[in-house]
Amino acid sequence: MTRLIATYRVPSDAGAIEARARAIAVEQSVEMPLDAIEDAAILNEIVGRVEGIEDQGGGRFAVRIGLAVATIGADAGQLLNMLFGNTSLQEDAALIDVEMSAEFAAGFGGPRHGIGGLRARTGAAGRALTCSAIKPQGLPPDRLAALVEQFARGGLDFVKDDHGLADQAYSPFAERVAACAAAARRATTATGHLTRYVPSLSGDLERMRRQIGLARDEGVDTVMIAPALAGFATAQVLIRDNPDVTFLAHPTMGGAARLAPELLIGKLFPLIGADAVIFPTYGGRFGYSRATCRTLAGNARAASALPVPAGGMTLERIGEKLDFYGPETMLLIGGSLLMARERLTEETTAFTRAVAAHRYG
Amino acid sequence: MTRLIATYRVPSDAGAIEARARAIAVEQSVEMPLDAIEDAAILNEIVGRVEGIEDQGGGRFAVRIGLAVATIGADAGQLLNMLFGNTSLQEDAALIDVEMSAEFAAGFGGPRHGIGGLRARTGAAGRALTCSAIKPQGLPPDRLAALVEQFARGGLDFVKDDHGLADQAYSPFAERVAACAAAARRATTATGHLTRYVPSLSGDLERMRRQIGLARDEGVDTVMIAPALAGFATAQVLIRDNPDVTFLAHPTMGGAARLAPELLIGKLFPLIGADAVIFPTYGGRFGYSRATCRTLAGNARAASALPVPAGGMTLERIGEKLDFYGPETMLLIGGSLLMARERLTEETTAFTRAVAAHRYG
Repeated sequence: MTRLIATYRVPSDAGAIEARARAIAVEQSVEMPLDAIEDAAILNEIVGRVEGIEDQGGGRFAVRIGLAVATIGADAGQLLNMLFGNTSLQEDAALIDVEMSAEFAAGFGGPRHGIGGLRARTGAAGRALTCSAIKPQGLPPDRLAALVEQFARGGLDFVKDDHGLADQAYSPFAERVAACAAAARRATTATGHLTRYVPSLSGDLERMRRQIGLARDEGVDTVMIAPALAGFATAQVLIRDNPDVTFLAHPTMGGAARLAPELLIGKLFPLIGADAVIFPTYGGRFGYSRATCRTLAGNARAASALPVPAGGMTLERIGEKLDFYGPETMLLIGGSLLMARERLTEETTAFTRAVAAHRYG
Repeated sequence: MTRLIATYRVPSDAGAIEARARAIAVEQSVEMPLDAIEDAAILNEIVGRVEGIEDQGGGRFAVRIGLAVATIGADAGQLLNMLFGNTSLQEDAALIDVEMSAEFAAGFGGPRHGIGGLRARTGAAGRALTCSAIKPQGLPPDRLAALVEQFARGGLDFVKDDHGLADQAYSPFAERVAACAAAARRATTATGHLTRYVPSLSGDLERMRRQIGLARDEGVDTVMIAPALAGFATAQVLIRDNPDVTFLAHPTMGGAARLAPELLIGKLFPLIGADAVIFPTYGGRFGYSRATCRTLAGNARAASALPVPAGGMTLERIGEKLDFYGPETMLLIGGSLLMARERLTEETTAFTRAVAAHRYG
């Protein structure tokens, strides 16, 4: 395949949509007047091509544009640039889907571990995986580590850093990772259940490389990265260069109102190698619909990445969420568990037991 | 100052806006229920604080949130994360402004050359600077270099890569930079006017470092980077580590509908060191208003970065654009010049002469 197909949702009058579609095709490829292009090969093979326009009703159209893969190569940053770069600056158009050949997709790497690897590592079969997050911002490493231990004694599979935890003065990365990894090990020794502590990477490529090195030194084999913040190229390279590490992707800076979460989180994060993708579930603090969440989770699984619904989940709704998402899922409950304070381990145990006991309909 | 002030534009009922404002303050700081936080110091010093709510009419409110700078530190990626990370995933809220102390801002570096440095390098006084871009995608290095030479013979100050040019098979970065830099030198030797060729960086930090090294080898001292695509942390580090290089910032992937361009391009790009910022001007292919462009350009100048309006400018409108933007500006005209094809040098000469001859009102 020499082209991928990008689909944009564009509000427009019916009479204007064809010209608008052509304008997007030009913007996302050669970005100049076609009349100024002399070469037939560029006009035929490089300029974006309108492959279809579908009236979705309500003055909105789905525009399918064929973009030459030759303009992209194998760099994930350039993929995003050609898919949505300048068009992201338009006030109305949204990028809602991308279709590409398996061969082209494979060039970006995909999940190295994915659903199967996560299951194999955790030893959990037939149930959803479980996760929580340590917060709030401002706690020192020993206090965060105490939370890790309480969570781990409750039987979680993963305890991740809040995505706001970086390398702050009150909680430097190196000290936090050492303390939290040790806390997870202590709990595992006590209970026999393996809980993985998942540090959040921040900064540029070199700092993230050092962070992964520090995490490795503490026996950590799973980390979290935010591709929309770090840059797709950076995430791609880190994942490629650490094939034994499992990567959770965090959606921060995803700007979903213009870049469909089903695509960004469900397809593009796995494309560049995320083994699991965190996203704000319906019914929480964010506005994602059930349909969006179902499609996003399905897209992730199709790419072998584990969907991780989060963002305002509560214990009371575990059953409903598991019925909705099924067992090929990791549930992430953060703040609602932390409300239990000194009863954190008990509340976490209730979480992990509910997940273990759930009967999928 | 222990807090910066982030301003969000939020559509809301009057009765619901206070709760919504508090929710944003929590989301962008501790991201957990306040009832679960035991520490008074965190509640007082780390949790985001609603500093003001202004009814802007039409069901929209401007919400000012004080965010603790301790949660950010000196990493530009973390700055964006705490300013807008999770809230970017909401369907409605937009980040429209940030106020911070000069001391805190200085930690991010700011433009190393800025307006004064760009003027000193080009030797141009009392007029706007001039720039164009080489395109289309798909041309080999020698053809792109021929465009550079034609542009340079027309007297431009800068000729930049199209932001879609990366390291494609048909135009590898190293070959392109060597050919284009040589073309600019040839023209300068012939005309005596110094034209700078500006390559576009792509990929991750290590690849960009290598690209800057290749550019240096060719005598290039000005490069272009897209911070929203590369990642703020990456751009920040590259700029910091190359203090003798001038950086143009490209807005691709800026997603302006949710992240105000006056802020992202006008303030945040200069904050992390962009010497000049390219943006889509009113009256071109993009929907930015005159008010947005005026504010954006003013913000950039206030930070000592040169505003570079672009995105569909034409020769016919140079006078109007110079009256609007004034001399502390670099005009970037791309596709419209390329329409001249074999008369490219003459058309470029008309551009540079119009800029040189303009009398500012």
